Amino acid sequence: MSDSAIKKRNKIIRRWLSKDKIDCLVVTKPANVTYVTGFSGDDSWAVITGRKAYLITDSRYTEQAEKECRGCGIIERKKPMAEAAGGLIRKLKFVRTAAVEKTTSIAAFEGLKKSSGRRFKQAESIIEAVRSSKDEGEIAAVRTAAQIAAKALEQTIRDVRPGITENELAGLLDLQIRKLGAKNSFETIVAFGSNASRPHHQPGKRKLKKDDTVLIDFGARYKNYCCDLTRCFAVGRINPFYEKVYNAVKEAQAAAIKMVKAGAEIRRVDAAARGIIRKYNLPVYSHGTGHGVGLEVHEEPAVSSQSKGKLKAGEIITIEPAVYMPGKLGVRIEDDVLVKENGCEVLSRDCPQQLLIASE
Amino acid sequence: MSDSAIKKRNKIIRRWLSKDKIDCLVVTKPANVTYVTGFSGDDSWAVITGRKAYLITDSRYTEQAEKECRGCGIIERKKPMAEAAGGLIRKLKFVRTAAVEKTTSIAAFEGLKKSSGRRFKQAESIIEAVRSSKDEGEIAAVRTAAQIAAKALEQTIRDVRPGITENELAGLLDLQIRKLGAKNSFETIVAFGSNASRPHHQPGKRKLKKDDTVLIDFGARYKNYCCDLTRCFAVGRINPFYEKVYNAVKEAQAAAIKMVKAGAEIRRVDAAARGIIRKYNLPVYSHGTGHGVGLEVHEEPAVSSQSKGKLKAGEIITIEPAVYMPGKLGVRIEDDVLVKENGCEVLSRDCPQQLLIASE
Repeated sequence: MSDSAIKKRNKIIRRWLSKDKIDCLVVTKPANVTYVTGFSGDDSWAVITGRKAYLITDSRYTEQAEKECRGCGIIERKKPMAEAAGGLIRKLKFVRTAAVEKTTSIAAFEGLKKSSGRRFKQAESIIEAVRSSKDEGEIAAVRTAAQIAAKALEQTIRDVRPGITENELAGLLDLQIRKLGAKNSFETIVAFGSNASRPHHQPGKRKLKKDDTVLIDFGARYKNYCCDLTRCFAVGRINPFYEKVYNAVKEAQAAAIKMVKAGAEIRRVDAAARGIIRKYNLPVYSHGTGHGVGLEVHEEPAVSSQSKGKLKAGEIITIEPAVYMPGKLGVRIEDDVLVKENGCEVLSRDCPQQLLIASE
Repeated sequence: MSDSAIKKRNKIIRRWLSKDKIDCLVVTKPANVTYVTGFSGDDSWAVITGRKAYLITDSRYTEQAEKECRGCGIIERKKPMAEAAGGLIRKLKFVRTAAVEKTTSIAAFEGLKKSSGRRFKQAESIIEAVRSSKDEGEIAAVRTAAQIAAKALEQTIRDVRPGITENELAGLLDLQIRKLGAKNSFETIVAFGSNASRPHHQPGKRKLKKDDTVLIDFGARYKNYCCDLTRCFAVGRINPFYEKVYNAVKEAQAAAIKMVKAGAEIRRVDAAARGIIRKYNLPVYSHGTGHGVGLEVHEEPAVSSQSKGKLKAGEIITIEPAVYMPGKLGVRIEDDVLVKENGCEVLSRDCPQQLLIASE
């Protein structure tokens, strides 16, 4: 990300901190550290004050940090992380009330309090809220990730033949993602036949039959940004009931996507998809209809029946209705959608859309 | 893992809890949840009392939990996790002092205290300490993971040709691991030439040259257990200085492995490897010489100059000395070693040992 993009987002975060009377925020969640500093390595924290942002890292990453975080003060720690961060805060005389992200571990929290000598608050999800609306550079990165994922899947399904295992097919897809210069955004799920009724199935030794179905849930990560897509395919002869379910899920997804625009109530987007599944008398999925996607595969906003807010321009959300019938089938279709003022853009529209693959 | 293995380890954990006057431990770290329940899914916690172990999960995982955790009480939560766990503890009238793992987030800790109405302590790394010595089933799983990793690498290096990118080579290796029925234990590192001087290099577009070097740091995960291996190869003509460094690292690794047995002081194992690097006037690596490996890729015990304890039978540690010369080269050789009463067993001994690959 550009230095100016990072400056801009940190300005917004500072406004929130000042509203909450926080002089200094300790950022411990890895994706948030990346967001406020540009750093893409591990094992590092950030500290944001009204004046400056610091990255606290160790000798393995100093060279990388100097390249990636030109707007930050970089501190190479020799001590344990909480002690190093606390020591920095102790030196910042203007800090009276500090805050730490509520995802921080209790051990780190204790260490921070002890070594800083400051009062500490728990900060609500300030950075997560700012992160939910993406800037241009972020949108471009997710768009590229989605294009890479689409191309990788297109190339992979050409090689799908009966006899291949779930695990091998996952490996072939991951290889295509690598060849296209990206990495996985999470561990690829491949589920054949009724295995697809478990949303979190782990690919295994199950071999593809002559007439069979395939669910693939996967994503590419490009410049730290994730996409998250699911496609379902039929191999050989299409079972008519499977096709009926598939079309219902497609229709449910389209109904939800049609609702996506800035200002739309999120729970109504969720309800639109569920309504279609219900209309066909099919079992309604128990997970949310979607979630934000960006530096993390799952981030704000959640798209569920419990969601209270409205969509905002610049958010990127998945829309992924499904039908699960244990022992029988699972169908889920998932795309990544950019929220715009007057509608939306499906960033993953190039991802293969056909139901039938590997027919003779 | 077998039910009896889980019973046995929980008996040891209960002994520690009783020593610390803890009536009930809330287990939130994913690998620890797997260890005490056998559960291999996500988003779940365990609660251990003197009498029973509970797994708290949600509807996505209930079916899987019933299969994997036959010795546990399984609770399908409807509420947020901390509230569900707190509610369970509130009902356990005999619990007076509860404890939570110190890696737990401060938000979860607050939620637990509020919903349980109990006093809470922070537990030191009780389960991590028990986990460090592996039982037979665990040793077998790591051994298989190491055998799969070895075979996958052997097959992959046959296809190494000038022109391949780091990213593509990583994808090819990952595919072989999948074909052999396992998954990655972490994101594979492939570094060509001087890229290898950064221990945490991310594989990219760099193409392999006719005369070049390759560092591969990778692992397979089998039945939830990880291995962690590193190999370095020369392609085409071997640079004599690279060969000198390679042999020094080999000698350093052998010197450390020779020291590994139950009762050996860990910091002396570390010192043995460093001594050899120093003897050759090469720069001494700044990371530890190794770490435990099991349910997590990095776990106890750390093998470093700071380590205070002694090795125990059943521990599986990596031995991975290295030489890094920025802009020039990086050589690291890493194997997984089982600590035995009178010595050790290199579980990854089948992993390719030759320096030269892809010669004409």
